[in-house]
Amino acid sequence: MKIGILASWRGTNAKAIFDHVKLGVLRGVEPAVLIYSDQEAPVRKIAEAYGVEAVYVQHRGVARSRREQEMAEVLKRYGVDLVVLAGYDYILGVPFIEQFRWRILNIHPSLLPFAGGKGMHGVRVHMEVYKAGVKTSGPTVHLVDESVDGGPIVDQWPVYIGDIYSLDIPYDQKLSILADRVLIYEHRLYSRVLQAVADGLLEVRTERVKAPRVAEEGGRVRYVEEEVEVARAVLKAGEGWMRQWRERQRVYVEHQLREWRESGKPMHLICPHGCLD
Amino acid sequence: MKIGILASWRGTNAKAIFDHVKLGVLRGVEPAVLIYSDQEAPVRKIAEAYGVEAVYVQHRGVARSRREQEMAEVLKRYGVDLVVLAGYDYILGVPFIEQFRWRILNIHPSLLPFAGGKGMHGVRVHMEVYKAGVKTSGPTVHLVDESVDGGPIVDQWPVYIGDIYSLDIPYDQKLSILADRVLIYEHRLYSRVLQAVADGLLEVRTERVKAPRVAEEGGRVRYVEEEVEVARAVLKAGEGWMRQWRERQRVYVEHQLREWRESGKPMHLICPHGCLD
Repeated sequence: MKIGILASWRGTNAKAIFDHVKLGVLRGVEPAVLIYSDQEAPVRKIAEAYGVEAVYVQHRGVARSRREQEMAEVLKRYGVDLVVLAGYDYILGVPFIEQFRWRILNIHPSLLPFAGGKGMHGVRVHMEVYKAGVKTSGPTVHLVDESVDGGPIVDQWPVYIGDIYSLDIPYDQKLSILADRVLIYEHRLYSRVLQAVADGLLEVRTERVKAPRVAEEGGRVRYVEEEVEVARAVLKAGEGWMRQWRERQRVYVEHQLREWRESGKPMHLICPHGCLD
Repeated sequence: MKIGILASWRGTNAKAIFDHVKLGVLRGVEPAVLIYSDQEAPVRKIAEAYGVEAVYVQHRGVARSRREQEMAEVLKRYGVDLVVLAGYDYILGVPFIEQFRWRILNIHPSLLPFAGGKGMHGVRVHMEVYKAGVKTSGPTVHLVDESVDGGPIVDQWPVYIGDIYSLDIPYDQKLSILADRVLIYEHRLYSRVLQAVADGLLEVRTERVKAPRVAEEGGRVRYVEEEVEVARAVLKAGEGWMRQWRERQRVYVEHQLREWRESGKPMHLICPHGCLD
């Protein structure tokens, strides 16, 4: 399965995918091309270091339709089966989404639908999480549709963050610990999903379900149930598959820990409740 | 620590607390009284079977202020330190909340703030969860304030539910499996929190944080950050405490599994990904 990665700046998720491939953890997934939107983006050098072709598509001052047409041409030229958004800072337009219907993945650093939607990107997501005081956050991988952060959820990874509130450090540092901790699991979740897709385990189907709705009429609140149609991403990875993945993933986790140690970053970024393993 | 439980009907959470106390898992917590709101409620018999005093307070056709005054008198007569809502179907009024400020706990069957708020109780919560297609749900224990489901979050327990969507059974059965699976963890979470409170590990403090807000002005969306004050529940249970609790909790889990087997209910209600342990 050939994947094309869209990235805007740092590219930590792209790097994690490259690492998984290089270490042999991720199998049958070939990063064919990386498209970046800013000439100065560090992600370009990351791709080059891993021998992945990096193609620049200008975004600044260019109409969305034009840049997306250019991106689509690049992706097709490289024979891409799946489009992987990895810190791509732009909202995709309808024509692009239609061309790659149910073949675009995105990762979001909260348990969607909470802390998702318009304006919810980067540190704002973690601000919303912190404000709510939730004890569990974590990344979501979802299929991209016309909504913002609202496409079918493919997988989520809950991460314990309850200890961060009581740390005796400034707010900005807490946010950065929160972001870093979720990021560790973004890397692991994204690759797990990519492996499952490569193994043919992702199915998209629509389903009609009864859902609750709060209706306000003339100042009076009524609770009604209505039937809605939802698109559903089903990952048919059973317990056996998960066990195998966890065993392989161990190689990546060790690699990640080694990198952490060498970076000299404080280890409290790693979950204190043993959830890294 | 003497607790007073408010319940409306089934009382499965009350039963779990009684079981924890009876098995010696929950220590230093004494269920002093159970107040029920419906004369026919099965929860009354549960309390009596465990030797806990059950007091009926009429809700039907009685003004909120009157019934809550009656409840407050009962709770004080029994020397209750903490009020525990366990399937209590009514929204508490301000005078009652003020009398027991930060001494009222509630449990909600989703990862709040998602699927919380007005109208979100019982099966509606799980309908909302199912509609969104989230792969992770789970109970939240929070302190009760004047908002609906919006008080400071004390603790949460993420539960994997991603397999339920692909089961080949009717929607209603899926909802019931979802509800039952979360319920297992409600029982375990609530007791963990009660033990922590009894051990003096719960602290409530206020904090000023920067939070994101989407502002719409004249059709144009702006993203702003504003400072807000939030009340924060901090549970200072460290890794050593958690390890001890998990060891003790094992007794309850075995008890619960024994009850499941004897009930003859299908075992797919238990999480297929080993998350019961």
